[in-house]
Amino acid sequence: MFNKVCIIGVGLIGGSIARAARKQNLCQNISAFGREQDLDNLQRAKELGVIDSYSSVLSEAVMDADCVIIATPVGAMSLIFEQLQPLWSKHTLYMDAGSTKASVVAALKTVFSDIPENFVPAHPIAGAENSGVDAARDDLYFGKRLILTPMTETAPEFIQLAQDFWQKFGSNVTLMEIEQHDAVLAATSHLPHILAFSLVNFLGKKDETADIFKYAAGGFKDFTRIASSDPTMWLDICQANKEQIIPLIEQLCVELNGVKAKLEQDQSQALFDSFSYANQARQRFLDQQK
Amino acid sequence: MFNKVCIIGVGLIGGSIARAARKQNLCQNISAFGREQDLDNLQRAKELGVIDSYSSVLSEAVMDADCVIIATPVGAMSLIFEQLQPLWSKHTLYMDAGSTKASVVAALKTVFSDIPENFVPAHPIAGAENSGVDAARDDLYFGKRLILTPMTETAPEFIQLAQDFWQKFGSNVTLMEIEQHDAVLAATSHLPHILAFSLVNFLGKKDETADIFKYAAGGFKDFTRIASSDPTMWLDICQANKEQIIPLIEQLCVELNGVKAKLEQDQSQALFDSFSYANQARQRFLDQQK
Repeated sequence: MFNKVCIIGVGLIGGSIARAARKQNLCQNISAFGREQDLDNLQRAKELGVIDSYSSVLSEAVMDADCVIIATPVGAMSLIFEQLQPLWSKHTLYMDAGSTKASVVAALKTVFSDIPENFVPAHPIAGAENSGVDAARDDLYFGKRLILTPMTETAPEFIQLAQDFWQKFGSNVTLMEIEQHDAVLAATSHLPHILAFSLVNFLGKKDETADIFKYAAGGFKDFTRIASSDPTMWLDICQANKEQIIPLIEQLCVELNGVKAKLEQDQSQALFDSFSYANQARQRFLDQQK
Repeated sequence: MFNKVCIIGVGLIGGSIARAARKQNLCQNISAFGREQDLDNLQRAKELGVIDSYSSVLSEAVMDADCVIIATPVGAMSLIFEQLQPLWSKHTLYMDAGSTKASVVAALKTVFSDIPENFVPAHPIAGAENSGVDAARDDLYFGKRLILTPMTETAPEFIQLAQDFWQKFGSNVTLMEIEQHDAVLAATSHLPHILAFSLVNFLGKKDETADIFKYAAGGFKDFTRIASSDPTMWLDICQANKEQIIPLIEQLCVELNGVKAKLEQDQSQALFDSFSYANQARQRFLDQQK
């Protein structure tokens, strides 16, 4: 499918793309780019066989690549676009793998006065609480959703190429408007992460004085799993998508205050209805996952 | 250990107590009590071998029992105490298995002018989102915390008997003040359930119009698992412990509004610190679970 794929940022996401591309025989060669301080990690990626070569000089890493994938935190993409701009090739497919899309496209538009037709914004909805290239897996994207949010400028043939690429990993590819992507992900992923971080933050302080964690059970463990996610990455995502996230926090507090009022006023039926609706809504979610 | 154990309410919790008692050879005989409308369930429990006999007449079910365990929803305990009161035996160990303790003891005190010395409030911190006797397991309590909250009136020999009983199931038994129990459980269990119900309620309504659930991933699945819990049971628990839960909802909203303000004001370092603290606090929780 490609001669050379270049991965910019070889962590869990970039490393898993490299492993899947190799497993599916989608390219001859995989190079990687990272900063000076990432060289140990890149060396590790090479030793693991995730990539074939690496460089901290971008022009070397992307040379002759016909597919370039930016898998850095979303906050770093501005800088990457600036460095890529003079090296841009018309014949190469460029994609990112960021969890937010409006911020990535805004960064692209700051750097390029003419929006390139061969950049396809992409978001694989997959991850794990472990990070780093050691956690990379060739099946991370298998059976998972992958959202592409092409711009009006994006050429259909590059959209098709991007779609084929991810489908070869076994991903379920959907095309979506940028705004819709960011709204959906704010609700189903970013808000839950903020909730988990906030709850564990709040209870962690109580635990310091009242030793509560040792009485927490399995439900608490599952509920707070996403609070073990990487703080740097999530700071980045939350800031990049704050326009969508802020109103959701407000609305959720309205919902919580509603539960509080129902408890205060002993509105049993209304509380029961609300818990039952949630129970049924989650069943609808589970049925869809099958 | 006992001649006859009587279980009042044979669902997941009561059924698992019966199964564990039989497996550990803690009694000769297991009877059960349920209401008229529970007879099918009791028949099912008998067919499964969980219990030996059952009756919808309480005096029959508890006759000659030297251990009686009330495993009904906490909201039903008032009624059970009223019915048990004329049948009360001084030589029998009585326990409940409810998730809240102040409400259970309050119900007891309404019925008994002299607080019986042989009632030991107990709470096995174990469960599953599946309910009913079919989900009962003989190892549900193995390796799990069990909290006893004896009153000043409770006799030491009955506390010891209760402790021995649960330890034989492999439970890790702790004695605690009633108020402390309810505060700890409100924080680590009741608040997370309310959060999960509230989030799924809120997002479920969005899903009806915007189809968001199909883009939710594994993190969302784990985070919302407890929203699949039984609404009736949780209505009961939340109402029984509302004095503890209401201030926690308020405090959590303060925490969420803090995150919102930090996002609005681009306070990156403060946000990072808060996410990092949560990440480390969860690690502390995980380390304690080992």
